[in-house]
Amino acid sequence: MNKKDGMNYAPTGRSKKVVENGEFQIAAIGLDHGHIYGMCNGLIEAGAKLMYVYDSDPEKVNAFCERYPDVVPVDSEEEIYNKDSIDLIACASIPIDRFEVGKKALSSGKHFFSDKPGFIKLEHVQQARELVSRTGLKWGIYYSERLHVESAMYAGELVKQGAIGRVVQVIGTGPHRLNASARPDWFFKPDYFGGILCDIGSHQIEQFLHYTGATDAQVLHSKVANYNNKQYSDFQDFGDATLLADNGATFYFRVDWFTPDGLQTWGDGRAFILGTEGYIEIRKYIDIANNSTSDHLYLVNNEKEEHFGLKGQVGFAFFGEFILDCLHNTEKSMTQEHIFRVAELSIETQEKAVKVE
Amino acid sequence: MNKKDGMNYAPTGRSKKVVENGEFQIAAIGLDHGHIYGMCNGLIEAGAKLMYVYDSDPEKVNAFCERYPDVVPVDSEEEIYNKDSIDLIACASIPIDRFEVGKKALSSGKHFFSDKPGFIKLEHVQQARELVSRTGLKWGIYYSERLHVESAMYAGELVKQGAIGRVVQVIGTGPHRLNASARPDWFFKPDYFGGILCDIGSHQIEQFLHYTGATDAQVLHSKVANYNNKQYSDFQDFGDATLLADNGATFYFRVDWFTPDGLQTWGDGRAFILGTEGYIEIRKYIDIANNSTSDHLYLVNNEKEEHFGLKGQVGFAFFGEFILDCLHNTEKSMTQEHIFRVAELSIETQEKAVKVE
Repeated sequence: MNKKDGMNYAPTGRSKKVVENGEFQIAAIGLDHGHIYGMCNGLIEAGAKLMYVYDSDPEKVNAFCERYPDVVPVDSEEEIYNKDSIDLIACASIPIDRFEVGKKALSSGKHFFSDKPGFIKLEHVQQARELVSRTGLKWGIYYSERLHVESAMYAGELVKQGAIGRVVQVIGTGPHRLNASARPDWFFKPDYFGGILCDIGSHQIEQFLHYTGATDAQVLHSKVANYNNKQYSDFQDFGDATLLADNGATFYFRVDWFTPDGLQTWGDGRAFILGTEGYIEIRKYIDIANNSTSDHLYLVNNEKEEHFGLKGQVGFAFFGEFILDCLHNTEKSMTQEHIFRVAELSIETQEKAVKVE
Repeated sequence: MNKKDGMNYAPTGRSKKVVENGEFQIAAIGLDHGHIYGMCNGLIEAGAKLMYVYDSDPEKVNAFCERYPDVVPVDSEEEIYNKDSIDLIACASIPIDRFEVGKKALSSGKHFFSDKPGFIKLEHVQQARELVSRTGLKWGIYYSERLHVESAMYAGELVKQGAIGRVVQVIGTGPHRLNASARPDWFFKPDYFGGILCDIGSHQIEQFLHYTGATDAQVLHSKVANYNNKQYSDFQDFGDATLLADNGATFYFRVDWFTPDGLQTWGDGRAFILGTEGYIEIRKYIDIANNSTSDHLYLVNNEKEEHFGLKGQVGFAFFGEFILDCLHNTEKSMTQEHIFRVAELSIETQEKAVKVE
């Protein structure tokens, strides 16, 4: 795991191939965020074949081709849209540009898999809904902080099994290391990525709806601050929010860019899932001052306190399920409505935020 | 530590006697909440002499006298108000009755030390302010979840030393075991204790102002629910809130009655103090599935991750400081304004709460 920041966090792991080599072909457009590696790893491990890549920056393309030696770099986005063999386009461009890539992907008959945040404008989500409805294609979003975290995936299993009764509340914290000197300009300009709640907050809202089994929620309160990085005038280094799900469960999350240098990884991400019959705590990337491996899950219920070390034990079922959803027009990985509603709620949470300092 | 609930949580510990035997004499009125034992332990260890006790329930008085064999039970509150030798009256009656005891205590020339919540009505805080101002006496409140928790006291020291830079946010969780069958009737009726945010939430708000060094705050959002105890129609088994301090720091806290039976103690109380240069996590009463002793503090700053096992290492400085504050009219233990403002904010947080279910 990269100690410097979370931008190059690209897990590889146990995975079941759901398709034969060549049966599901993918291409990558937009390498601005290192999440593209996690996205491709996940899909490739589930059987996808990575065929082409495009980015306007040759340096990013070279690095990508080093990591995936069989991929073919092409000279324009259009070449990829025009390839009939391609089933899906994965995209981690600057967030503001992702919608346009998705629109062209679906318009050219390809499924789309976007890095989070998939959207930074509500009207784009609406247009994407219409495109999906018209084409029958998928518009996926890579919510890596659950989909690519074994302890987070396992927490969902435990909840489903009824291990903690009815889930009544979730608390999520998503601290990230700033690592300012290595960040591109757009990183500090919310107009490009939607702001801290829309961006890294979207992981949180996705988890909330998933763990509570809710289909919708409302934003009750949210706030943002730039406490300690005032040299970047529009930047937000802190944000939090509380939401109410349609099933009565509530949520609080905090995201920030305050991971201190002494932490052995890029962020001490946690989730606390409170049920009527017990609770789960996930220490996703580290168990501070205790164990520097990732994926520690703690379960306390009416029988006992229990620790699960889950690194390498769970795998990443999402990617194979998502490929099969694309192929068979099913919704086993997650529903399209879940994806769009999370995006909308993330934007709403951002738009409603009060500023503090 | 009592596994059943937190009501009889009455720590004893290392303490420096600040007065000689008999120099500071105290009496107890109102034994409804077991906190009276923690309150008396703290004061006695700091040198106070416990002289008299009154409660209308002989059973409670007998239990108290067993614990403190030298205490003299008296037949009425008035006997205690009339004793010139008594310096302070400690009170853990039903919350709604505490204000009247405090009023009589100060009116008869005695300092007052109330269990939390000290107040459940704003107008009572105002009257108490006036009484304190007129008499020059102290109106203390026993915020046990910091004052009687070594890791919580040490966190304040670390913050003061600058170990994590500027504190920008605090998250506090205060889960409690319900243990419904052992609770008195009033426990389920918010009119008697002010509601979950006013009651166990007051600990949280006290910690927030203390750790952030703020003197005031505003309530931005709060909510309550009765998720799983609908047989008690007015009860609240869940509450949370977010506040903004006058220095820009923010706060989120959650309190609940959902501690599952498998937890080895009454509640997995935590606090997370986020600074610009690091963060502190306190695992107050247990380090789940890891260490069943209390008082674990985790510090992560720009140098390292560090665990502190603090049980028996810190002591409870508040009680001696409070006695000296009474004797010398100083404010070293905490300011009177802090005490009253926490009480007001706790009531405001409760009054503003939206109900969810």
